[in-house]
Amino acid sequence: MAFLQDQWYAAALSNEIGGTPFARRICGEAVVLFRTPAGAPAALADRCAHRHAPLSMGAIEGGTIECRYHGLRYDTQGRCVHVPGQAQIPPRLRVRSFPVIDRHGWVWLWLGEAGRADPSAIPDFHWFDDPAWNAFQLYFHVEAATQLFVDNLLDLSHVAFTHRNSIGAASAADAQADLDTMTDGDVVRGRRALKDVEPGPFIARWGGFEGRINRTSTYVWRPPSNVEIRAEFADATDSSRAITIMVINPITPETATTAHFWIGWARDFALDDEALTQGAIKDNTQVILEDVAVIEAQQRVMLDDPGVAAVPINADRAVVAVHKVIERLQAGQAAARRVAAS
Amino acid sequence: MAFLQDQWYAAALSNEIGGTPFARRICGEAVVLFRTPAGAPAALADRCAHRHAPLSMGAIEGGTIECRYHGLRYDTQGRCVHVPGQAQIPPRLRVRSFPVIDRHGWVWLWLGEAGRADPSAIPDFHWFDDPAWNAFQLYFHVEAATQLFVDNLLDLSHVAFTHRNSIGAASAADAQADLDTMTDGDVVRGRRALKDVEPGPFIARWGGFEGRINRTSTYVWRPPSNVEIRAEFADATDSSRAITIMVINPITPETATTAHFWIGWARDFALDDEALTQGAIKDNTQVILEDVAVIEAQQRVMLDDPGVAAVPINADRAVVAVHKVIERLQAGQAAARRVAAS
Amino acid sequence: MAFLQDQWYAAALSNEIGGTPFARRICGEAVVLFRTPAGAPAALADRCAHRHAPLSMGAIEGGTIECRYHGLRYDTQGRCVHVPGQAQIPPRLRVRSFPVIDRHGWVWLWLGEAGRADPSAIPDFHWFDDPAWNAFQLYFHVEAATQLFVDNLLDLSHVAFTHRNSIGAASAADAQADLDTMTDGDVVRGRRALKDVEPGPFIARWGGFEGRINRTSTYVWRPPSNVEIRAEFADATDSSRAITIMVINPITPETATTAHFWIGWARDFALDDEALTQGAIKDNTQVILEDVAVIEAQQRVMLDDPGVAAVPINADRAVVAVHKVIERLQAGQAAARRVAAS
Repeated sequence: MAFLQDQWYAAALSNEIGGTPFARRICGEAVVLFRTPAGAPAALADRCAHRHAPLSMGAIEGGTIECRYHGLRYDTQGRCVHVPGQAQIPPRLRVRSFPVIDRHGWVWLWLGEAGRADPSAIPDFHWFDDPAWNAFQLYFHVEAATQLFVDNLLDLSHVAFTHRNSIGAASAADAQADLDTMTDGDVVRGRRALKDVEPGPFIARWGGFEGRINRTSTYVWRPPSNVEIRAEFADATDSSRAITIMVINPITPETATTAHFWIGWARDFALDDEALTQGAIKDNTQVILEDVAVIEAQQRVMLDDPGVAAVPINADRAVVAVHKVIERLQAGQAAARRVAAS
Repeated sequence: MAFLQDQWYAAALSNEIGGTPFARRICGEAVVLFRTPAGAPAALADRCAHRHAPLSMGAIEGGTIECRYHGLRYDTQGRCVHVPGQAQIPPRLRVRSFPVIDRHGWVWLWLGEAGRADPSAIPDFHWFDDPAWNAFQLYFHVEAATQLFVDNLLDLSHVAFTHRNSIGAASAADAQADLDTMTDGDVVRGRRALKDVEPGPFIARWGGFEGRINRTSTYVWRPPSNVEIRAEFADATDSSRAITIMVINPITPETATTAHFWIGWARDFALDDEALTQGAIKDNTQVILEDVAVIEAQQRVMLDDPGVAAVPINADRAVVAVHKVIERLQAGQAAARRVAAS
Repeated sequence: MAFLQDQWYAAALSNEIGGTPFARRICGEAVVLFRTPAGAPAALADRCAHRHAPLSMGAIEGGTIECRYHGLRYDTQGRCVHVPGQAQIPPRLRVRSFPVIDRHGWVWLWLGEAGRADPSAIPDFHWFDDPAWNAFQLYFHVEAATQLFVDNLLDLSHVAFTHRNSIGAASAADAQADLDTMTDGDVVRGRRALKDVEPGPFIARWGGFEGRINRTSTYVWRPPSNVEIRAEFADATDSSRAITIMVINPITPETATTAHFWIGWARDFALDDEALTQGAIKDNTQVILEDVAVIEAQQRVMLDDPGVAAVPINADRAVVAVHKVIERLQAGQAAARRVAAS
């Protein structure tokens, strides 16, 4: 399955990219990210055209990156602009460059034809720029395909089992969920509501809930693999006692079977409660690692015998809808490649 | 080389299987073993039919195993009996189950057609149930093919070299062995007798021997890969000073090139000598690790260049006889598959 | 790319080979090296013909090597000369032997037809036998193809970048090098001279230089992969203040993508300065590890996408000349194989 092309992929947190090279594999491509002295992010193939040393071992010199091996320098467009002791530079001495842009705390990398890179296609995750919200962003490397983590987020029936000791509760396992899913162009939206369930210890702590709650998750999936969840928790007997959390998950393939995962977590309550923030960082780390343990095991099982089909259940409605959009986008991509090749 | 089908394979020690799932790969198949509250052992494919999470990450709930991911429950026959929040259960939601039985301290798993699983085909290793014997069972994971360890046990000429400091002696290396091998249906029996040799330090200790001994090993190989050795050691000058040890080795393929190995060690003397038991556990662990070191190295050499044929020597008589039986059983198995496919 | 045949390859330091077996993979072949009691080196395929245990687990018994598994013994020509308990030895019980010879501190192994092994083809690295020189030899295992390290040594423009804090200096990066390369049969010779450059801290220390220097490297590449560098450093303003160092690098493929690397380092000054020797061992270790870091990264990048061609620069003149000789030798080798096969 080819990676979706002509898409923005989250590549790194903006504050990870600075004046020293940062190496990361994105959709199978070895990429080096860095900033020019002016602060502009840049992304190049991480491979000197001369003898294939990784440019990420080098140094930023002015607006260029210098290879650690023989000192060749490349500008942010991937053109070699300096070969030590040599006046003429062969035009073949160049490396692929990728459009990149800082937005909402992430550096986004455009995989596809540079001319089609439209910054407005980056999802609006403004909560990380908005002083009305208290937000943090965490990164996890996952030994599993991106889509497996997307599917995890789209089928929240797993919360009562995978997260039974954190944000779910075993007692809620058989609660009747009110499910709603809708495909809107290339976007899938949905809602999952549970009434009068145990909150799970973390949610009880975040919201100060003492009894049962109603929980509603409103989610949006956008290609290639961005999941946005508005999580609303309210006291089951007093709906004025409620909190809202935005859970933002860009997920980026590293390879076909490994992924870069971020959770952005934003709240509009108790903005100055630093202890709550630190607790939530710890709690969310545990929750994600609960998912990672299951998803990585799932990936290993699938790699062990790749020919086995999944059997869908009712809770997979959003998963199925998203898979359909992806198949449609991939079919279009394949057709475009055939046209280009003919 | 396909694994022999329609065979009982040792899967675990009986006391390893209880109320929490136990994951083990058997003949290439990922299997989860557990017990129902009534104590009956069960074995299922370790892969939820829904989304492929390993069932071994889950929990035993009543007589069922519950998936950690989305809470599906399977009975001991592999049928899904519960999907949270869903009344109808699609019949495709099922996983393979394997017949299993407790016998002589091991859980045996039937690989093949369930209807042909005959408990009486499990080898009679009664020494582990018999109060007239003092017995223990040890497990080792081996990075080598099962057959390589079987061959090791069938050619005891290795004892003087591999175990020269434990149960063999360099001085016995060129002793003339009296060898006898016989194929009896699917079973190979043999005997190897040495007269008037140094005992090796461990055997001297176990039997209290002060001088040279006669040693006779009477062995039985039964498919798929069970080796039973009756080891008799007697003072070379006083045959009334003798001990008998039963060494029982079921070996089970994990994959084509890795194995589960057990040594069951039973004695009919000094039954209450706990110090002897503890010493023998330590001694046998050393002996097995001496074998494992050689066999794993042998496997690495063979994997490095798989096309090289072995050159048999006289001592390989039992090895050759067993290989012939296995080839016959595999040919029959292949013929049955062809009939089934036509 | 096949390994060059009918060549002497450095296999080990002479003082590493003694009365216990020494295992090393040479050009993809698992080899066991040992010495007979008379001190003669021997090299055999590291695989018993009987059941494939590595002979290197065994012991030297007289002039033979004894297998740890079943006690078979092989002489230095690879003939089995003893099978315990068996009078007749099948002629197929033999393993490949390799001609080996001690020379200049290394054991050299002949890969090719034994009848063509000519000791005079071993390079004359006499500095390691000559009391007029103070010399040491260091070994490094490298996770990269042999040729990548050869190329590194042939393009010394890397010194200002890879070794900018040891034997190079960033300030010398754009110094104009005077380059000279010449192919002489199967040998490539060259010279690289820099005038009036910073010496780098290690060279300043070795030569006691206080200011800028002239540096001349005169190098010889000999097949299969031996690089000899005469490094001359002289005070830029007083040419009588000069030192000469011979840097000898035999490099031997372990596999197609891993290598055995030696640096032999010999000086003809301050012969009795043991502190200088110890410092130079430490310094050269750092320098080699600086190279290894870049070369191993380069190899990983190349393995990641093997189809990408290198783009040569002017400094690659010697690299290109050596590649041409190797291609010619390999073409001759392939032609000889075709003749032999027809």
